[in-house]
Amino acid sequence: MTRAYSFDPLPEPVVEPGEFVFAAVGLDHGHIHGMVEQLVAAGATLSLVYDPDASKIADFLRRFPQARAAASEREVLDDPTVRLVASASIANRRAQLGVRVLDAGKDFFADKPAITTLDDLAAARDAVARTGRKYAVYYGERVHSEAALFAGQLIEQGAIGRVLQVASFGPHRIGSGRADWFYDPEQYGGIICDIGSHNFEQMLHYTGATSGEILSSTVANYAHPETPGLQDFGDAHVVLDNGATGYVRVDWFTPAGLDVFGDGRTTLLGTNGYIELRKYTDITTDNGGNQVLLVNDEGQFRFDATGRTGYPYFGRLIRDCLDRTDFAMTQEHAFMAAELSIIAQRQARVLAG
Amino acid sequence: MTRAYSFDPLPEPVVEPGEFVFAAVGLDHGHIHGMVEQLVAAGATLSLVYDPDASKIADFLRRFPQARAAASEREVLDDPTVRLVASASIANRRAQLGVRVLDAGKDFFADKPAITTLDDLAAARDAVARTGRKYAVYYGERVHSEAALFAGQLIEQGAIGRVLQVASFGPHRIGSGRADWFYDPEQYGGIICDIGSHNFEQMLHYTGATSGEILSSTVANYAHPETPGLQDFGDAHVVLDNGATGYVRVDWFTPAGLDVFGDGRTTLLGTNGYIELRKYTDITTDNGGNQVLLVNDEGQFRFDATGRTGYPYFGRLIRDCLDRTDFAMTQEHAFMAAELSIIAQRQARVLAG
Repeated sequence: MTRAYSFDPLPEPVVEPGEFVFAAVGLDHGHIHGMVEQLVAAGATLSLVYDPDASKIADFLRRFPQARAAASEREVLDDPTVRLVASASIANRRAQLGVRVLDAGKDFFADKPAITTLDDLAAARDAVARTGRKYAVYYGERVHSEAALFAGQLIEQGAIGRVLQVASFGPHRIGSGRADWFYDPEQYGGIICDIGSHNFEQMLHYTGATSGEILSSTVANYAHPETPGLQDFGDAHVVLDNGATGYVRVDWFTPAGLDVFGDGRTTLLGTNGYIELRKYTDITTDNGGNQVLLVNDEGQFRFDATGRTGYPYFGRLIRDCLDRTDFAMTQEHAFMAAELSIIAQRQARVLAG
Repeated sequence: MTRAYSFDPLPEPVVEPGEFVFAAVGLDHGHIHGMVEQLVAAGATLSLVYDPDASKIADFLRRFPQARAAASEREVLDDPTVRLVASASIANRRAQLGVRVLDAGKDFFADKPAITTLDDLAAARDAVARTGRKYAVYYGERVHSEAALFAGQLIEQGAIGRVLQVASFGPHRIGSGRADWFYDPEQYGGIICDIGSHNFEQMLHYTGATSGEILSSTVANYAHPETPGLQDFGDAHVVLDNGATGYVRVDWFTPAGLDVFGDGRTTLLGTNGYIELRKYTDITTDNGGNQVLLVNDEGQFRFDATGRTGYPYFGRLIRDCLDRTDFAMTQEHAFMAAELSIIAQRQARVLAG
């Protein structure tokens, strides 16, 4: 007899129009669209947008016509109605922007990697302590993934017992037409810090750990000599502070034959079963993404998480900003995921291509 | 347009009856059945069997009635017609038996882990050098897996370009009724040395490396306090000498709901695509095992390797013994897989349960 799982209701808007006003500053990565879209879906009111590049603002306004272009970052920071600034600027500039945002008395919501150096991390932690404001991070591969959220609900209900390991594979397609900064490791932070940061967040989240130690990590540029600053491969082996382990591999080797940007997988090993997430596609089938496969002592179960969870993170973040609570994600969790990813990046063995 | 792959013909017996006579000594692990069965299928003639436990001999003879029970190991070693001795004795006794077999002028074919300590490895290497005989190892998760062999043929034809990483997951079911030595790490060698040795062999094989370095490894007994000597979890992060990487996780957490002993997976990442092996089952489907999924620039392809490759290793081993060649597997490859697994085991961080 299979136990019955229950799942949270889909999230609804958490505020009335005008109750939570936010702005977007720094449009260098397309993630800003998902961040803004989901804040708006949760009820937030988008007021201002700023980027030094007018063409990026124009693109943004086509998508979000309710916004108004600000003349400068300063205009946004000086606007007392703006409670939160969302940003997907060039990665290594996010932390300094974040500190300015916090010092202006607002909360900050950065695309990952939100921070690329330990110095910037210390500065961000200081700013949070000094201002009491939030430095939230968009770890979209969990908080904006129904497969990942659905798995979280299964785990909370004991579907696989204690989580012993989070192993994840995050291949991505490099494609063409990316901006120069995508090829400069100082600017994008290195592959482990950049796309790997998602996975450190997931290791901490699913295992319930609060910190960890990087046992080993590697990076390489195996096959892209024309862009020597691209790290097309990275991996890391981690032990969490509660004795669980994590492994992550990220790469830029998604082949042309894949129908999505990458065959992202996560395997969650528990004492009483395991869950496999086929997040964006289920190769050689027409199942689509968001496939959650559960094997435990009761049998084998497949869930299509599409439309099953929504993205409650964004409404919780809004409420947290208004209520000064911590339900979306704790500050230290967001920072610790960044810290682990930066350390794994710094100490990575650079492999011969 | 998809390229056409060609696959090797199924293997046939390589010798006539009586042309290659072998014996089995040491029946502690059931793997001996697969080893003997495949040698016989390749044409070898089974003559003698010996184990100190008469009931194990009786079981073996029910399965292989063509064999005759020897009175002692000595009888086997002194029989000039026996060219090779196959063994699945208790793991930490295999090397010493192997040295005796080689010194008796015969070739040796050991279940994995064929060797559990660096001292025994040195002794085995010495014996090979001294006698010119072979110390072959049954790395069954590749040489006795059609999925694994089929993938090898795809890789040889360039289906995914250069192999950059071998990541494998080897969950196993501990079940009940295993002999005491399965719970004594000195005797079974530790989980990484034991079931992980398969995966080191695969890392070397698929990437074409000849050695490697263990970057980090861990072992734990997370959930079996009643058998403190059981390591129910182990993993290792490896860099190969050609710059490729490997990661392996092994565990004893196969849940009751799985229809096979373990959901063995291998992902082979190449510069131009990747291959996923679902070796023993394809969870939540009725596809069965031996599923080989290939994604490259030409598309997504699924192969059921069942019945497609057979197990040419065994015939090649027989021919290698007769012809003093090296086609089945080089000696150094077999030893290096053992060496890496022993080192990973020795230097593993022991995690808190």
